[in-house]
Order: sequence, then C-alpha cells, then structure tokens
Amino acid sequence: MQTTLPSYAVLSGGVGGAKLVLGLQRILLSGQLQVIANTGDDFEHLGLTICPDIDTLMYTLAGIAHPDNGWGLQNESWQFMAGMKKLGGETWFRLGDGDLATHVRRQQLLASGLGLSEVTAELSRALDVAVTICPMSDEPVRTIIETDEGALAFQDYFVRRKTEPAASAFHYSGSDQASASNAALAALENAASGAIIITPSNPWLSIDPIMSLSDIKNAINASPAPVIGISPIVGGRALKGPTAKLMGELGIEPSVLNIARHYRDVVDGLIIDNQDADQQNAIEAMGLTVKVCNTMMMNLSDKIKLAEDTVSFAASLRADKTT
Amino acid sequence: MQTTLPSYAVLSGGVGGAKLVLGLQRILLSGQLQVIANTGDDFEHLGLTICPDIDTLMYTLAGIAHPDNGWGLQNESWQFMAGMKKLGGETWFRLGDGDLATHVRRQQLLASGLGLSEVTAELSRALDVAVTICPMSDEPVRTIIETDEGALAFQDYFVRRKTEPAASAFHYSGSDQASASNAALAALENAASGAIIITPSNPWLSIDPIMSLSDIKNAINASPAPVIGISPIVGGRALKGPTAKLMGELGIEPSVLNIARHYRDVVDGLIIDNQDADQQNAIEAMGLTVKVCNTMMMNLSDKIKLAEDTVSFAASLRADKTT
Repeated sequence: MQTTLPSYAVLSGGVGGAKLVLGLQRILLSGQLQVIANTGDDFEHLGLTICPDIDTLMYTLAGIAHPDNGWGLQNESWQFMAGMKKLGGETWFRLGDGDLATHVRRQQLLASGLGLSEVTAELSRALDVAVTICPMSDEPVRTIIETDEGALAFQDYFVRRKTEPAASAFHYSGSDQASASNAALAALENAASGAIIITPSNPWLSIDPIMSLSDIKNAINASPAPVIGISPIVGGRALKGPTAKLMGELGIEPSVLNIARHYRDVVDGLIIDNQDADQQNAIEAMGLTVKVCNTMMMNLSDKIKLAEDTVSFAASLRADKTT
Repeated sequence: MQTTLPSYAVLSGGVGGAKLVLGLQRILLSGQLQVIANTGDDFEHLGLTICPDIDTLMYTLAGIAHPDNGWGLQNESWQFMAGMKKLGGETWFRLGDGDLATHVRRQQLLASGLGLSEVTAELSRALDVAVTICPMSDEPVRTIIETDEGALAFQDYFVRRKTEPAASAFHYSGSDQASASNAALAALENAASGAIIITPSNPWLSIDPIMSLSDIKNAINASPAPVIGISPIVGGRALKGPTAKLMGELGIEPSVLNIARHYRDVVDGLIIDNQDADQQNAIEAMGLTVKVCNTMMMNLSDKIKLAEDTVSFAASLRADKTT
C-alpha cells in the first residue's frame, strides 16, 4: 500500500517542455510536480533580468501564454516597444506591455535581495501557478553557442540572429562556479518516490544547461528514481525549434536513435513516437527501456495523454527496479 | 546693433512651467531657450529613476503630452499597470506602457554611466525636442514635505496621498551636497544676454528646490540679466495644483503680494495677472518692477502671448539696467 503519492521532478526548457508540464499538471496534485527550469537562456536586457523559460512555464501553467508564439502573453499590447523604438533603444527582443510587468517586478524583487527561486515562487503565487517552478540555479549560467559567426550569447543566437548561424558547440558559462538551487535539489530528492522526467525540450539548448550543473547531474545519477526522457525528434524532424537543424550542424543525423545516444548515460527509459517504433529494438539494445506512444502534443488531450503515458511508464520502471 | 540673439534660462517645474516654455519655444529659436528643470520630484520606483518634471517638459515640447492629466503621454495604454497589479507590485504611481519606455531607457542610459543631463539630452534628441532641458543637478536632490502625518517624500505626498496632509515645511534633501549641473550653470551664464525667467510653477515645490542649490542661487544673484517671475497665484487662487492650499497651510494668504514677498530677493520684475492689477503699486513699493497682463494659459495663443509679454518685459528691464 502506497502511503504518499509519488513526486516528479521535471527538467524543462520553454515551449515543448511547458506542454508536457501542462499535461502533468492536469493529472497530478500540485505537491507531486516540481519543474526544474533551464535558466541558460536568461539574460540581462534593458537593465532587466529576463528568464524566458521560467516565464513560458509560468504563463503556460497560469493559462495566459500566447497561444502560438511560444513566448509572451496572450492579448498583449506593444506601446512600450513603440516608445523604445522612438527613443533609439533596442527592440530586437520583443517585450509586450503586460509581459514587462513580470520583468520589472522580478528585477525589483531581485534587487531587494531575494534569490531567483524565491522571486519565481513569488511571481508564481501571484499568477496562481500551484506547480513549483525551480530555476536550475539562483546564480547566472549562460548558454553560449559557438557558431560560424563566432561565439553568441543565447538570445543573440536565438532571437536576434534567428538561429541562422551554424552552431558547432555549446558551453554553459558559469556552470562550473554555480550551484544548483536548493529548490531544484529538493525536487530531485522528492522525486525518489516517482520519477525524473526529461521533457522533449532541445537537449543541447534546454536540457544540457541544467545537466551542466554538477550537483544536479550527480543528484540525477544517484537517484533511486527512474529517469525518463521523451524524444524531441519524431520521424527525423523536430516538432518545433531548431533541434533538427542543430543536430545536422553538429554532424548528428536527427533521429530518435541519436537522441537515445545523447541521453543513454542519464536515462533509464526513453519515450519515442509511434512513427519511430521501428527504432525501438536498436534503442533497447543500448540498455534503455523504450515506450512507444504518441508524443506529438497538438492539443490539450495530447498533452494529458502523454503525461499519463509518462507517469505509467515511470510506474512500470519503478516496479522493474524493485523486482 | 545686436549681433547675437538674447538667450533665456527658464526655471521650471511640470505642468504650469511647461505651458510657458511651450509658448517661449514658439517665439524663440532653439538656441535661445534653455530650461532648468526641477528634479526634486524625482524618485526611484520599481527600480527606475522617474523624473516627472523633465518628462512633462519633454512630452509637452514634443507635442505628445497627455492633453489633460498634466503627466504622461497622450493615447496611452495600461497593460503594464494591470500586470503589475496582478503580480502584487505597487500601482499607486501610474506608469503608462509608452511612458515606461522613457523610464526604462533612462535607467539603462544612467546605468551605462551617463549623467542625468546627458541622458536628458539623449532622450530629448530622440523625441525631436530642440529646446535644451537641463536637470538642475545630475545628483539626487529630493523634496521632502513636513506634514501633519510626518515627513513625506514628494511623490508620497503628491500622488499617493494626493496632497491631503497639511504641509508645514519643506526641505530639499541632498541640496547641500549636490552641485548644479554644468548644463544649468551654462544656461544661466548664457542668459546674461536675455533674462532668467521663473515660470508660474509652484514656488515651494518646483522653484525652491532649484534655488536650494547654492551654485544656482549664486549664479542667479550674480547674473547681469534681469530675473523675472510670473505669479502662479491669480485672484487669490492657484490655476492648477496645490499652491494656494499650501500657502494657506503655511499661514500665508494666497495672493500675488505674498508671491512677490517670496521672490523679492531673487527677481527684478514680477508678472501678475490683470485680475491682480490693484496690487501693482504694493508690489512696486517692494522695489520690484511689475508687468500686468493675462497670465492664464488656457490655450496655445495664451501661452505664446504670455511668452511674448515675458520676453518684451525682459527687454524693457534690460534697457532699464543699461540706462
């Protein structure tokens, strides 16, 4: 008889990760779900600390995210940007009027001495987000992309240059000095009863920055919980974002097999899409357990279904471990 | 034969001062007009340095000021405020979405190491404001109001408490350490050829903070130029703002005579409204030259007319001085 409900620690970037987290939110009690958010995309802009993945998670879970953009708020207005343009300020990174409240409030709370975890908890509370969103670290870690145009900070690469330069390598500046946040480490510890889930976010740009923190990587390796990945590659393509393009530039064929190779030292099980069922055996030959199901989250029921499949996969892996 | 056009240094607060400055802008070439702006109302809010009087001047001269409010922009939207309210942030000081661009851009330029004078010049340039707006100081001077509810910072008194507490005294915190800006001192020096004009802004809340800087006061006293005041009191009332209420609380009957007493050590001439013509003799008995005309600036022609009257009054005072 199980006396406490299993707890899940979910590693997530922005859009793709947030979709699965939304599905998980619908089937779990709030105390069961902790999200460890990538902060490698964070940057300082116009004097404000911008945390794109945290915001996408908060806005998605609060039900106020823009339905299509993958960033920002629904029903947004752009007077601030128009003013900034007139004043000769930078406008390549679009900040909506309502969204700006988040950044200004965050900056104010950070300046008051709170850490990013506390600030995120405060903003989440105000937005009625019951799920705990844990920044991977309260200290700055910044994803740098080596490209044919030189080293680019994440947002320079992703937004300003629209991922056009060819990437050759990534590093996560500050990750050797930074500690994981206490909240993230607590989430991983709590997950002993459930699972550690790696969402189908971009492995290099969203998940590896989190794993670049040695105390997070060590906690995952030491955890008794099954670690489950969901492939962001389906049928040789990325559903959204530059994952497939990036893999090509790195000389890695975009395939679930290569996603499995990337995660094989970390995960116990990998969820792949029905379209890739023919690669199940090859991945199992690497020593991973594979679950095949629909991973394409086109609507809310898809998200809930994938969340259910993930949680049941976790339960079966836990059962395997204990038998 | 006059080889250079006369130059005017204009001491100004927000609304009332900006009206006269707008009139002066229409009749002078841009090189002839320098405004020394009160920064005693400035404050730090939501991590931003807000300069209400500078902004009212800039927006008025750029033709983008809100037509009625006396602050902020026309055609403004309020998504940021709505977001801030939702996030539990402070909303008592209203910052429109477009207006916010000014504050964020200013903060960014200040953080880059520029002084407030340079930042104001940069913002003015971007808004096509040809008139030079000189902050009285690049260093913080903050107007404090002693009231029956204790000492209040200016915006707490003026906006949050809507000038309801009874004022008993004012001081200008930081004025003993702060230096006048080089731009303000240059404006006063240039004005030797024209005049120093004290706009009909609130004497205690808008003009005295400027005069509290000893190098500004000394430069005005030492200037060969005539110094002209325009009474903010007309027929015993203030046209806008708390001037009359304040005078009552200070135990000073609101009258042009008492405005003359307040300014008598500083000005050579005082402009009073037609309604107060009966007090001309009493003011002249104090040793001041008086000009009586319409000072009520209800529309653009009023502003231009008062500007013309002020400039011709200055010319007559200059002629008196040299004969």
